[in-house]
Parts: sequence; structure tokens; C-alpha cells
Amino acid sequence: MEREASELFEEFKELTASEFFRRNKQMLGFSGKIRSLTMVFHELITNSLDAAEEAGIQPEISIDLKRVDKDHYILKHMDNGPGIPEDFITKVYCTMFAGSKFRNIQSRGQQGLGCSGCVLLSQMTTGKPARVISGYKKGEKLQGVEMTFKMDVKTNKGLILDKRPVEVDSTGVAIELQFKDVSYSLSEQGAYEYIRRSMIANPHAKITFRDPTGHKYIFERATDVIPPLPKEVLPHPRGVTADDLIFMAKHTDKRRFRSLLTSSLSRMSTKRVNEIQEITKIDLNKRPKDMKWEEAERIVELFAQMDFMAPPTSGLIPIGKEQIEKGIREILNPEFVATTTRKPKTYRGGVSFVIEAGISYGGDSGRIVGEQNRAEIMRFANRVPLSFDQGSCAITEALKSIDWKRYGIRDLENAPITVFVNIVSTNVPYLSTGKQSVAPEEEILHEVRQATMKIARSLQKYINAKRAAKDEEMRSKIFETYVPVIMREAAILAGKDVPEYKEILAKVTRRPKILDEIEVDLGELADEDIVGEKDDE
Amino acid sequence: MEREASELFEEFKELTASEFFRRNKQMLGFSGKIRSLTMVFHELITNSLDAAEEAGIQPEISIDLKRVDKDHYILKHMDNGPGIPEDFITKVYCTMFAGSKFRNIQSRGQQGLGCSGCVLLSQMTTGKPARVISGYKKGEKLQGVEMTFKMDVKTNKGLILDKRPVEVDSTGVAIELQFKDVSYSLSEQGAYEYIRRSMIANPHAKITFRDPTGHKYIFERATDVIPPLPKEVLPHPRGVTADDLIFMAKHTDKRRFRSLLTSSLSRMSTKRVNEIQEITKIDLNKRPKDMKWEEAERIVELFAQMDFMAPPTSGLIPIGKEQIEKGIREILNPEFVATTTRKPKTYRGGVSFVIEAGISYGGDSGRIVGEQNRAEIMRFANRVPLSFDQGSCAITEALKSIDWKRYGIRDLENAPITVFVNIVSTNVPYLSTGKQSVAPEEEILHEVRQATMKIARSLQKYINAKRAAKDEEMRSKIFETYVPVIMREAAILAGKDVPEYKEILAKVTRRPKILDEIEVDLGELADEDIVGEKDDE
Repeated sequence: MEREASELFEEFKELTASEFFRRNKQMLGFSGKIRSLTMVFHELITNSLDAAEEAGIQPEISIDLKRVDKDHYILKHMDNGPGIPEDFITKVYCTMFAGSKFRNIQSRGQQGLGCSGCVLLSQMTTGKPARVISGYKKGEKLQGVEMTFKMDVKTNKGLILDKRPVEVDSTGVAIELQFKDVSYSLSEQGAYEYIRRSMIANPHAKITFRDPTGHKYIFERATDVIPPLPKEVLPHPRGVTADDLIFMAKHTDKRRFRSLLTSSLSRMSTKRVNEIQEITKIDLNKRPKDMKWEEAERIVELFAQMDFMAPPTSGLIPIGKEQIEKGIREILNPEFVATTTRKPKTYRGGVSFVIEAGISYGGDSGRIVGEQNRAEIMRFANRVPLSFDQGSCAITEALKSIDWKRYGIRDLENAPITVFVNIVSTNVPYLSTGKQSVAPEEEILHEVRQATMKIARSLQKYINAKRAAKDEEMRSKIFETYVPVIMREAAILAGKDVPEYKEILAKVTRRPKILDEIEVDLGELADEDIVGEKDDE
Repeated sequence: MEREASELFEEFKELTASEFFRRNKQMLGFSGKIRSLTMVFHELITNSLDAAEEAGIQPEISIDLKRVDKDHYILKHMDNGPGIPEDFITKVYCTMFAGSKFRNIQSRGQQGLGCSGCVLLSQMTTGKPARVISGYKKGEKLQGVEMTFKMDVKTNKGLILDKRPVEVDSTGVAIELQFKDVSYSLSEQGAYEYIRRSMIANPHAKITFRDPTGHKYIFERATDVIPPLPKEVLPHPRGVTADDLIFMAKHTDKRRFRSLLTSSLSRMSTKRVNEIQEITKIDLNKRPKDMKWEEAERIVELFAQMDFMAPPTSGLIPIGKEQIEKGIREILNPEFVATTTRKPKTYRGGVSFVIEAGISYGGDSGRIVGEQNRAEIMRFANRVPLSFDQGSCAITEALKSIDWKRYGIRDLENAPITVFVNIVSTNVPYLSTGKQSVAPEEEILHEVRQATMKIARSLQKYINAKRAAKDEEMRSKIFETYVPVIMREAAILAGKDVPEYKEILAKVTRRPKILDEIEVDLGELADEDIVGEKDDE
């Protein structure tokens, strides 16, 4: 009955990444018809925005979604980015774990899985190849190529079916993909809402979208400010592990460990390296490959004790409080908005991040359920909307832990409020390959709470002021209605003339300022808050 | 300012799976000190159980966890499985996406990520190599080899540091790994609780565990019944997509498409193939590679319309209601248990699965918070405890959707109840590479609800009977206390002798049966339920 090992290992196999995800497409977020299509929008839009910004181009995306049959669609997605050189097209779209974003740089993509995931899903559901037209510059010359290809999952590579030069007017990529078993929806988790949210966090982008009914939505730019290009920053000493040092040492072309340190880490001067050598007695002139684990560990332990300047924040480009406000005003048309961008902090010792938040009240804020507006949480990571898996996300967890009653919001669930939170980092700690939720690192939870409580206080002041204004108006109305009557009756009783009271009455019933003015005042108040406010509650 | 594509693509890189997960270890479930260690236990135990069962051996595992320093541990894990042949050792432990379980067979592991993930974490936190001793049979001969190795993440392969033959007494694998930045905990998400839960779902296994304080826990077998070996089953026609057919056609060694169909799918006879040929007019004698997508699509559409026998269930081996009860009694020592194993169902058209559930009440049921027992949900997939990410799991979602008040449980949160749910499938739809939650497929949600409601009804009867018994006892006590007094006083008043009343009184106050008997009765009642019960509510 017992079987021996050799027999059991006959079936031993190695899969490529593509094969693995072909068997587990839900791990790329492709589960359910609506979610699958939203994930495709997410991956393509994300990629286009990253590419355009990296090239210093103001992003413009045009999407056309045609319904061929029930659950069967043709998607055309076009951007004005720098394009993809011919040799890289199938690498981008057919090789998983491949990309140009495996650096310490803030970008929307991070994994090298997204675009190839879309091609995989298209192929798995329709058997159709992908068609790409890429316009790109080679030297001064504008080149164009059109390619149709499939993904060979057994090799994790592309299989070119057709390729020919084409004339193009400008740089950019157009991709055409077909999908079955997906569904376009206007629901909160649908593709349309995904675009809408993208626009709030990317007010510098323009997206044109033709939906399956033929209706064309044009999401115009709310601002012409192109966000500055995030710089690639070297890792901070506090954020590296012994394993990182050994890994760097193994794959560097530097000849001395000391030059590896100064060239691979931020805030690492020659003076610093000398200090390290002195304290640890480790010969840092040795070849990187000779560095031992125990030595690397001692160096990392020392990093934790040394004083370093905080990580350079040139790598972090938040949206900015003004831009978030513009985005929110453009899309939600609210009665009141407050936004804030926190100072950079770090998690896991040395990975820097910034939390920004916005709260909007009234107008189209909240989501409409039946006839009522309910509170809505919009989560973003590096400006990318996170539409799924909110239950396990640090942002949701932090927001739920806030005692909203303290901010005058008795029932958050049923308030016409949208809370916007964006985490900016060179390394967002996503919980899964589907990239829809952020790991609940303690420092991230703390920052989300702080940012949100700050703007919740502004909202509270607005709501109170609004209430006071309403009371005032009521009071004025009562005076204006009854004072004349009383004056007249009193004059008749006293047998006197009615005195001139209008001027005095006007002083008593001074009409409340209009709400816009109050809002401005509150904005100023809120800014004062920043200075005087204690960080923790 | 604009940068061109070629410049941007200078940084284009391709990562191996190991490199990818080195950067994203939280995607393997390695986040947080406690969770990371529990995940290591999970992967190693899971692998040992699978290996022993596959070889027809009753599993016995011995684990020794030593604390070297704060957050620094040495783990020795040993099993009595068939061992790993020398050539496969580094493949099992150092190559990601590699394994023998990429088949249509029910097994705990599914991904070929687990063991290599543990080696990666060990290496990332301590820089130490892994040490493995493997005893395995080669023909009739018992071979032994000891090996130390590291993982080369750049190539996704092992790097052998030392290798020598050793004498072994029996087959099995012993692995020694060191970890830093992990923590042993007795909490619900800790390694100890993980073992305890494993034992409930695997009452045929024996685990010996020496904890960091030196205390030795011996979890004895609750049963000697070795579960039958699940058979590899061919995919059911209803469960395949056009892409699956094309994929099979591309990689088969069959020379005709018709023989590919009969040999690769279950319930697919020659008669059936002829029917398909007749209806679709597709020449099924053609070479598999000549099969076109549209043809595959037409065949799959036809599959949906044809009547097929349900998928063979020989591939699904549930724990069984008796065995679950034994497991629960052994570990939770409860007052009442009800268990059920449902009939096989399918999700996504043709992937079969079985839901089994248990509910236990009293004793050590529930988790103790402070001085109180609270309800506890134990989720399992193919007998493997799922300890994390419960928020997004189908099992949690289904249990939450039940109206527990209807079953006499007013406040589930605060009841001394443990609900046990196990999903058995050749292909559990995990939501992420960390394999801690099951995708909320509609059919799975439905089955979990049905299974749980059934046993909840038994529990309700038990609770009611217990309450009735208590009332009865109260009533008897009252009679026994007051009847003699009344008889005596009445006799005195009437001037008569006290009559013989004891026999009559005994009839009136018939003592309630002891609860064990009631439980047996209820067990029978519950079984009757199975027959008469309507499936849906």
C-alpha cells in the first residue's frame, strides 16, 4: 500500500508565472464579471498614467468599450505616453514579473503583473490575440509599429503573430483586447466609478470614455499643473535589512563595500562609513562579496542606533491639498471640502510614506443608496483607486477606529460624506497580488487617523457654523415678523405714534454671512490648526 | 523635459518568482511577527500531512521550537512521510511555483510556494542556510541524505553548500530553519492554536510539539482510521473552458482530438464524443493542434447543454461527520456536538466540492476572552486551518448571513460555541497567494449556510431540551419538597393518617433523563432530519 518517494515525485513540475496565474487568476483580482472588467481598466489606466508622467507628458487617455454580445466586449485603450519600443512590447504585455518599476521610485504599478494579466484574461476568455500600436521616438525620429500577439503561458513570453511598421502622428500606445465573461456596470465596483475616482486623484489627467451604449464621457482636467516627476531615491539605512545588504553586495559592480554603502543608501556619507568602520571594527574596504551575514547584521543594528536625517522626500510626490480639493470639487460638487497632506513619515523603520486626506460634505458627496446619500470611503494608493478588499485595508481600519460622534457626525453610515485617503510611497505594502488593500502597518494606521481627524474637525466647525447660521436666520425672521406688530400694537395702546424702529431692528437681526464666507474663514482656521495642533489625541 | 521611451526602458527587468516574493513577502502571508511564524508552521505541517497521506502512511510530526534570543528561533520539523529523493530536495525548498500538486487532486498544498517561502523567510531574516535530512526508499533500499543549502533568488534555484549520505532508520524529512523577527504566541493567530486546530481536522495524525519554554505537548490520534487517498480525477466537461481545451490540445501527446477528449475529461465516452461530432459538425479526428478557438468554444457551449453525470467524487475525501466529532470531542471536550457532511456540489460549472461543518457547545468551545467564552469560527480548507484574512472569506460571509436568533442563539458573539467549517475540493479558490481565505463563490456560500443551519437546528433542540430538563427538575423539586408537607398537614386537619403517596409522587416527578441520553435521542432526531429535510430554506 505504501508508495515510495520516487513514484510520488514523477509528477513534479515547475510552472512559469504565467502558468501559475492562469490557474489562479483570482489572485490577480480577476474574479467576478464586474470586478474583472474594473481590474482591466485599473491596470491599463494605471500604466498609461505612469508612462506619461515618467516621460513628462500631461496624460490623456481615451477608452472605447464596445459590447459585442452579452458579457462579451471589445476594449480599445489609447494613451499619449512615450510609447513602447518595439522590442519591449511583448515583454510588457506577455511576461509576468517584468517591468521597469522595480525601483525605489513612487509609481502606480509596482509588480510587473498588470498589463500581462489583462492580456492573459483576454486570451483565456476569448482566445483572441492582443493588438497594439505603439508610437515612440528613436533619437529624433518618430517610429510606429503595429503588432498582434498572444501570450505563451508555458514560456511566460509573447508569441508574435503579425508585425508591421505603421505611420503614427505622435507617441503613445493603443491596445485592443477582447473579453468574455466580464460585465460593465455603473455600480460602486464598476468600471465607470473607477474612472471617476481616478479623476479625483489625478486632476491633471484627461480621460475620454465611450461606454457600451455609445455615450461619450469627457473628464476634463481640473488643473494644468503636471505633478513633478518623483525621483528615484536610494533606500534609507533604517529601511534596509541584513538580507538587503547581502543581496546588494552579491549583485553590485562596486569593488569595495564602503563604496557600495555610499552609492546604494541615502544619507550615507564617507564620514558616516568611517564611523561605522570605527565602531564595528569591520573592514569596509573588503570586496562586497566577502561581506558576512553577521557583519551585515551588526551594521544594520548600528544603523538603528545612529542618528540619520529622515529619508529624502524628493521621491514622494503627494497630490497636494489644493489639487485634491480641485479634484473633489470637479467631481463631487460639494457644499464643503477640507483637505490635508501630512508630512512624510516612515514605516518598517525607513520606508517613507505620506498620507493625504480629504472630506467632502453635501452635493454629490457620499454614495446614493435608494434616495439617500450614504457615507463613502474612497481609498487610493499613489493616486490609484482601490476598489476591492476594503475589509482588510489599513485605510478602512483606521477610519473605522475614529469616534465620528466627536466630530458632530452621529451616524457616519448615513451622512452625505465622502472621505478620501491617499497613501503615497515608493513601496506601498499591498496585501496581495491584486493590489487592492494596504497592510495595516502601525505607522500607516496612525497617520490615516491623524489626517482624517484633522479634516473632520474642520467639517465639524462648518456643520456647527451652518447650524448657528440657520438658528440666527430663524431668530431674525421671528424679530422681523413680530417686532413691527408689537410696535404697532404697543403704540396704539399707548396712544402714541409708531416710532422709527427699522434701523435698530436691522442691527439686532444682522443677517448671517453667506456660507461661502464662513467656509473661507474656516479654511483659515483650519490652517491655523496645523501650527497649534498637537499631533496626537 | 520630455523623455523618450528607450531611456525609460533602460530599467526594464524581469524578476524570478523568488525575487518577486522576496520583495513582497507579505503576499505569502509573512507579515507581522506572530503571523509569520504561524505561516511557517502552516506550510511545513501541511506539506508533511500531504506527503504522508499520499504515501499511505499514518502521519506523525514532531516539532521543536527553540528560542535563541528575543524574536529569534530555531525550528526543527520532522515527519514520517516518504521522504524526498536527493535530486528534488532543493527543487522543493528553493524553487517557487514548483511542486507535485499541480494536478486535479485534493491536497492541502496547491501552489508550490509554501516550503520555499519558509526557506526564503529564514534566509531573509537570518542569512542562515536550511538543513534537511531526507530518508527515502529507492527500490527496496532505504537511502539517507543530509544537505545544507541556500536559495538563489536571482535564479529561483537552490545552492547546495554541503551534501553527504547519512544513515536513517526510516523514511521522512527533517528540516531545520532559523528565523528572526518572528514571535511565538498562544493567541488565536499563534502557532500553538494552529496546531490545535490542525488536530481537530486531522484526528488521524499525531503531532508532538516542544514549545520554547521546553514544555512538550503530545497531540495523540483521536482515531486510527487513515483517510482514504484522494484519487486524481479528470476535470468534468462542465468545469472546463475553451481556453482549457486549447491549452490541453497544445500540450498533449494524443494524435486525435477525440482521444484527447476521452482521456482528459471525466464522463466522456466514445458515444459522447460521437454525439458532439454529430451536433457540432466538427471533425474530431483532427490533430489536437488543429483545433480552433471557435470550435473549442462551440464544444464547451455544447457541454453546458448536454446531460452529464455529476463529477466523480472519488477525488473528494471529506473528513466525515464521525471523524469531525471525534476531533472536536478530543480537543474541545464539549457538552454537545453536531456535525454534518454535505453531498458534493460544484462551483464554476464543474469544480466539485464538499462542505462539512460541526458545531460544539459548552466545555472548551468558543474562545475565552477575559472570563467569558465567546463564539469562535474555525475555518478549514482541505483540513488546513485558515487563520487569517477571515473578513474576506466565503465561510465567514456565509456564517454571518445566518439569522442565529432563529436557532435560539440570541447573541452569537457571546455564546460558548465553536463553529467548524471545512471545504473539500481539488481546487479551493483561494483569494491570494497566502491561501487564507476562500473566494465567495455563490455555490460555496449556499452550501456553508445549509450545512451550518442544519447543525444549528440540532443545537437548538439540545438547548431547548436542556432548558426543559432544567424546568422539569425544578418542578420535581417543588413537588418533592411541598407534597409531603401538604399531605401531613392535610391529614392532621382531616384527622386521618398520612396516606401512602410516595409511589404516586414518584410518577409525577419522574426525574428527567440524564442529558447524555437526550443527546443520543437528538442525534437520532438529527439523522432523521437528513431524510425529511428540505434542502433550502
